[in-house]
Amino acid sequence: APKATPKFCGMTEFVGTGIGDTIGLVIANVDPSLHEVMKLDKKYRSIGIIGARTGAGPQIMAADEAVKATNTEIISVELARDTKGGAGHGCLIIFGAEDVSDARRAVEVTLKELERTFGDVYANDAGHIELQYTARASYACEKAFGAPVGKAFGLMVGAPAAIGVIIADTAIKAANVDVIGYASPAGGTSYSNEVILFISGDSGAVRQSLIAAKEVGVKLLGTLGGEPAPVTVPYI
Amino acid sequence: APKATPKFCGMTEFVGTGIGDTIGLVIANVDPSLHEVMKLDKKYRSIGIIGARTGAGPQIMAADEAVKATNTEIISVELARDTKGGAGHGCLIIFGAEDVSDARRAVEVTLKELERTFGDVYANDAGHIELQYTARASYACEKAFGAPVGKAFGLMVGAPAAIGVIIADTAIKAANVDVIGYASPAGGTSYSNEVILFISGDSGAVRQSLIAAKEVGVKLLGTLGGEPAPVTVPYI
Amino acid sequence: APKATPKFCGMTEFVGTGIGDTIGLVIANVDPSLHEVMKLDKKYRSIGIIGARTGAGPQIMAADEAVKATNTEIISVELARDTKGGAGHGCLIIFGAEDVSDARRAVEVTLKELERTFGDVYANDAGHIELQYTARASYACEKAFGAPVGKAFGLMVGAPAAIGVIIADTAIKAANVDVIGYASPAGGTSYSNEVILFISGDSGAVRQSLIAAKEVGVKLLGTLGGEPAPVTVPYI
Repeated sequence: APKATPKFCGMTEFVGTGIGDTIGLVIANVDPSLHEVMKLDKKYRSIGIIGARTGAGPQIMAADEAVKATNTEIISVELARDTKGGAGHGCLIIFGAEDVSDARRAVEVTLKELERTFGDVYANDAGHIELQYTARASYACEKAFGAPVGKAFGLMVGAPAAIGVIIADTAIKAANVDVIGYASPAGGTSYSNEVILFISGDSGAVRQSLIAAKEVGVKLLGTLGGEPAPVTVPYI
Repeated sequence: APKATPKFCGMTEFVGTGIGDTIGLVIANVDPSLHEVMKLDKKYRSIGIIGARTGAGPQIMAADEAVKATNTEIISVELARDTKGGAGHGCLIIFGAEDVSDARRAVEVTLKELERTFGDVYANDAGHIELQYTARASYACEKAFGAPVGKAFGLMVGAPAAIGVIIADTAIKAANVDVIGYASPAGGTSYSNEVILFISGDSGAVRQSLIAAKEVGVKLLGTLGGEPAPVTVPYI
Repeated sequence: APKATPKFCGMTEFVGTGIGDTIGLVIANVDPSLHEVMKLDKKYRSIGIIGARTGAGPQIMAADEAVKATNTEIISVELARDTKGGAGHGCLIIFGAEDVSDARRAVEVTLKELERTFGDVYANDAGHIELQYTARASYACEKAFGAPVGKAFGLMVGAPAAIGVIIADTAIKAANVDVIGYASPAGGTSYSNEVILFISGDSGAVRQSLIAAKEVGVKLLGTLGGEPAPVTVPYI
């Protein structure tokens, strides 16, 4: 489990760091030229920034809580093909805010939530299984995954991608859920070695699906390496 | 040479593992919702799945033998940008079958052939050279590489990509072969650091081309690191 | 700092190696079939080739000097998603020449310049900060970055990408420069975990911008890991 040591640097733009080489930053007044090339909406003079080498799901789910808790908007979510040699993504998430204190608060909430949202990431040297769940999806989940806002939402990731196909099938068969989307190396990912399934529906059903997927996924990933262990503490 | 230890997990979906973090799986009855998001042909209720962190060529060539030997079809071949920090791809290959025993058999044949098809992958810390050859290309080679079915076919990979350019030139000059295709970081690969040349023609000429490419490629790759060694036993 | 040991291999195509698993090669007479699939202009029978696992900026800036110094043209610049598990690119650069001695000379100049152009790449385990500067951009910078030929040009890279956003803002505010372009994981990069800003203008202003960006970038990257150290000797 990659865990960042807290460090400080005395810059007003710096908010903090988190698991997965995650860094949280703010800009109080974005320069107009940068505003333009980043294609930001004029009304947001302040932005909050979350970036990470490892993980996209955990950061997006954490940002989803931040959007609920603050007066900010998710402007963009970009997925790098990264994970420091692993099979998955890294990410760049931008929050827009009219006031820098809102942007900063959104970044703080995201960094704090990260400890939880890394809880159902199970990894070994061969790959990873990731489960994410929310009882009520907000705008980060909508932007990044097409989740219906206000409804229970879940996602499951299997890497290498082959395992993702099996856990997707397992999840759909385990409970009555709506399949919202499917992503694979050549479609919907940034060429990561993952298959990802996005589901919605009744909260109990979504959770039941995810738990079934996890059990199968962790077992299959274990055939390629050591026992996959959660990065922090499972929350689903 | 990454070599998987055989492990079992007691699941009916699990077939086996192989070199390169390769895993072989089957689904007897794909759930209709998954069928739909994966865009599978309705006639295949069973699928065989091969996925790997490291390698695409070896798995595709092995799958080509599996398609010849079984009553299955190659549904899709996807290339992740992976190799665990290496310069190449990982893969996700789906076989369609009307019966699960055919899907399982295709996966078994693929895993078995993998030992051979990793034979002409020469790697060191700086990159890899890969050669593949078949006297008679089948549907996996057609799907993935555009190879003419039934004809002798070969491919060569050089990573970093610069070496691939030289071995492509060497191969074409070494014998009278048909150039079928060329892939590079920005075109035809998933941004891997490889140049790949696909050739067809008389079987003797194809082999002669590949052997010339190998000699040059291994020599050049050696200038960047240790002596490149084959992953298993060369077969060409 | 990855530093290649000089090795030789007795082939006329081999020119040399450099930092970042960079290899320099030439082909005196490109085979017509390869010419065709590589879509090379017919007038160049010779090509020079620079390829690397780690780095694209250093190689492109070095190639820019080579184009100024020789009778060659930059035919193509391709960026792989590489860096051996790092957050950035690798590259494949092709020079065209009517005579092989020109192609060879361009490759030699590039390899020699590389020692300098890796000088403002600061890296630790979590990412990297890269600055590049030229008082007079030439055709490699134009091809790869859209730089106006003959003018002062600079670029700055932050990885993970979040840091790149901050240094871009810092750079623009630090001096009166023209913003030429902006690249991020989902736009303008090969899904690398970088934000890159390209600037032009008065040479003093461009340098001032880059120096401001460097100070901030190195400080922020340091919050995620050890003190970022330059690969060779800073030149800006």
